[in-house]
Amino acid sequence: MTLIVQKYGGTSVGSLERIRAVADRVARARQAGNDVVVVVSAMSGETNRLLALGKELAANPDEREMDSLVATGEQVSAALVSIALAGKGIKARSLVGHQARILTDGVFTKARIRAIDVEPFRAAIAEGAVPVIAGFQGVDSKGNVTTLGRGGSDTTGVAVAAALKADVCEIYTDVDGIYTTDPNICKEAKKLQRITFEEMLELASLGAKVLQLRSVEIAMKYGIPIHLRSSFNETAGTMVGAEVDASFEAVVVTGVAIDKNEVKVTMRDLPNRPGVVATIFGGLAERNISVDMIIQTESRGERADLTFTVTQTDQARSREVTQMLGRDVGASGVELHDNVAKVSIVGAGMRSHAGVAAKMFKLLADQKINIQCITTSEIRVSCLIDKSQSDLAVTTLHQGFGLG
Amino acid sequence: MTLIVQKYGGTSVGSLERIRAVADRVARARQAGNDVVVVVSAMSGETNRLLALGKELAANPDEREMDSLVATGEQVSAALVSIALAGKGIKARSLVGHQARILTDGVFTKARIRAIDVEPFRAAIAEGAVPVIAGFQGVDSKGNVTTLGRGGSDTTGVAVAAALKADVCEIYTDVDGIYTTDPNICKEAKKLQRITFEEMLELASLGAKVLQLRSVEIAMKYGIPIHLRSSFNETAGTMVGAEVDASFEAVVVTGVAIDKNEVKVTMRDLPNRPGVVATIFGGLAERNISVDMIIQTESRGERADLTFTVTQTDQARSREVTQMLGRDVGASGVELHDNVAKVSIVGAGMRSHAGVAAKMFKLLADQKINIQCITTSEIRVSCLIDKSQSDLAVTTLHQGFGLG
Repeated sequence: MTLIVQKYGGTSVGSLERIRAVADRVARARQAGNDVVVVVSAMSGETNRLLALGKELAANPDEREMDSLVATGEQVSAALVSIALAGKGIKARSLVGHQARILTDGVFTKARIRAIDVEPFRAAIAEGAVPVIAGFQGVDSKGNVTTLGRGGSDTTGVAVAAALKADVCEIYTDVDGIYTTDPNICKEAKKLQRITFEEMLELASLGAKVLQLRSVEIAMKYGIPIHLRSSFNETAGTMVGAEVDASFEAVVVTGVAIDKNEVKVTMRDLPNRPGVVATIFGGLAERNISVDMIIQTESRGERADLTFTVTQTDQARSREVTQMLGRDVGASGVELHDNVAKVSIVGAGMRSHAGVAAKMFKLLADQKINIQCITTSEIRVSCLIDKSQSDLAVTTLHQGFGLG
Repeated sequence: MTLIVQKYGGTSVGSLERIRAVADRVARARQAGNDVVVVVSAMSGETNRLLALGKELAANPDEREMDSLVATGEQVSAALVSIALAGKGIKARSLVGHQARILTDGVFTKARIRAIDVEPFRAAIAEGAVPVIAGFQGVDSKGNVTTLGRGGSDTTGVAVAAALKADVCEIYTDVDGIYTTDPNICKEAKKLQRITFEEMLELASLGAKVLQLRSVEIAMKYGIPIHLRSSFNETAGTMVGAEVDASFEAVVVTGVAIDKNEVKVTMRDLPNRPGVVATIFGGLAERNISVDMIIQTESRGERADLTFTVTQTDQARSREVTQMLGRDVGASGVELHDNVAKVSIVGAGMRSHAGVAAKMFKLLADQKINIQCITTSEIRVSCLIDKSQSDLAVTTLHQGFGLG
């Protein structure tokens, strides 16, 4: 018998009407002869509402208490989905963190799953009941409620699927799959039928944020195919998996991503001696400021410029920290620019196709788009460009690589 | 060191402003040198909001799921109170059912507490932290979330106080104590400084519903004094306890209660043979219809009338059931009247004072108030009267027994 884990996001359980639709979909999957395990997010808006309550009471609210507070969102939707299922004559049993025995480490607000006891799920299934698991949460070894960080219900869904060795983890959201690029920028964007885990990881980290990164890592590690699809229609979505069929491999570039949340930091005239760069990035890491692209210009004698990017949410802190670090190491100045965008092409086929990066640079140059920084991975090339040219860059690359 | 359990009701944690006031009050109690344990209800309105969600999804929502659903209300307020305390520099630790280890039976929506493990509370106190317990809930032996029924947070408060052998259980609400009668009916009503457990039990069951009955039973059993008071001011409220001091004992009648939620049922011409009455009350009990006052008129030969009262919420079902039972036993008819009210006088001093009931009947008769039924206990006399005369009856008795 096929075992399907269905994970429903916030908009998919966002109202009682949507919750009834979830019950209908579970009913159909069972009628089709499948065993179903459900994982739910909080109703859309609920997590933010709860976070706002806590933050209004204290500038730095206690993290243990914030976790216990926001975990109620998923407990509510798990109970409501179970009630809706029972109302349709389908036995169901909601399970929150301590009942599902999802054991995590003790790092509140961003805990990681250590172990999942599948016994409660198997017991429910054996009784003919659908386990409905509150996503996003677990308990640590002391019984404290923990949460897995934003989007953590995706991680719960895939981790439960891995623990149960499920055939597929269906992730229901309000979009119907992964597109070759942002349809708001480029009307010719097409939905991808299939995509590899690696491509998904590159796309997810680049701003096509439909799936939590960690959930894709777990799916890849345990070989659990993800079917990313919409709960608002019956259309098949995008399969994220390991297998690459012949026709698929022929595609060199799978998608074009754009990220407008980067800030370019340039530190001028750093002394060209060992340890300077380590001091700077060590100082940033200590303050939990993550750095994305890094480029160091050719040294001019004893001095060199260093350029890197940070995210916009870290902009204010980065300015302060880099100015301080700049003084410490003797830089002549620090500049921050947020009028930049990172455009990326992603595709597993790049591995075996030379010249993909060169073609990207030529396509951009033909449109007089200046490239400020470049970073690459095995299956991705990213260029930092002026923000005003980001739409032009996306459309140009989408067309140039034949994705339309 | 004095150990105080402070239980805060829904209006006392009904907004972030009220939650900050709770934190202030806890801070003051600690500054005064007390150890404090807090028990909280859900924010006012939250339990009803959650119940409505569940009931909209299914006519008879699954009770296990309803319990898991509504228990989130107290989890939220326990976390928020803990955050507010931490914001004032007071270490605090919220504890929900599975963490406080409040073990109940498995009767969902009206579970009863079987055992409380005080170790988590003692551990928190030893660390200098205030345990903030989510009221109203527990877990059964299988780890299912259970709730204690409406007003169950009072029971949690008193049970925790009993388990910890606390010096007092302070119950904070939006009224500042128990009054000699309803101040809305009788302007001369006075707040009682002290009242015995027995009197409180009689008053609670008679409509002065400020405290859950079960919590008073537990307090009486374990000898935990309850201080019922308002969280909206600093005024002392009413102490509910076992001791009766001399001046207190001199008071014969402590309070006058009125209950307008009764329905009088009269079954006409029942056969005067053994077993008939048992059949009727057995039939009502089977259907969970509770009967309050019972009066059987003098038999006229082979037939007798039977009168009793039920609550208004059971009115429709009572009509159906009594008509059916009436046919079974051969009654000539069944009548229901809801234009009745039950007025009661309560006082521990009645035990040792003769003639209290007689005085009550005379006071009512002088005002031409007809008494339809009478029931008594050791410390209470109740009369069923016409609803239109209920205010007059309360004022008359309040004045007649010198309570003003």
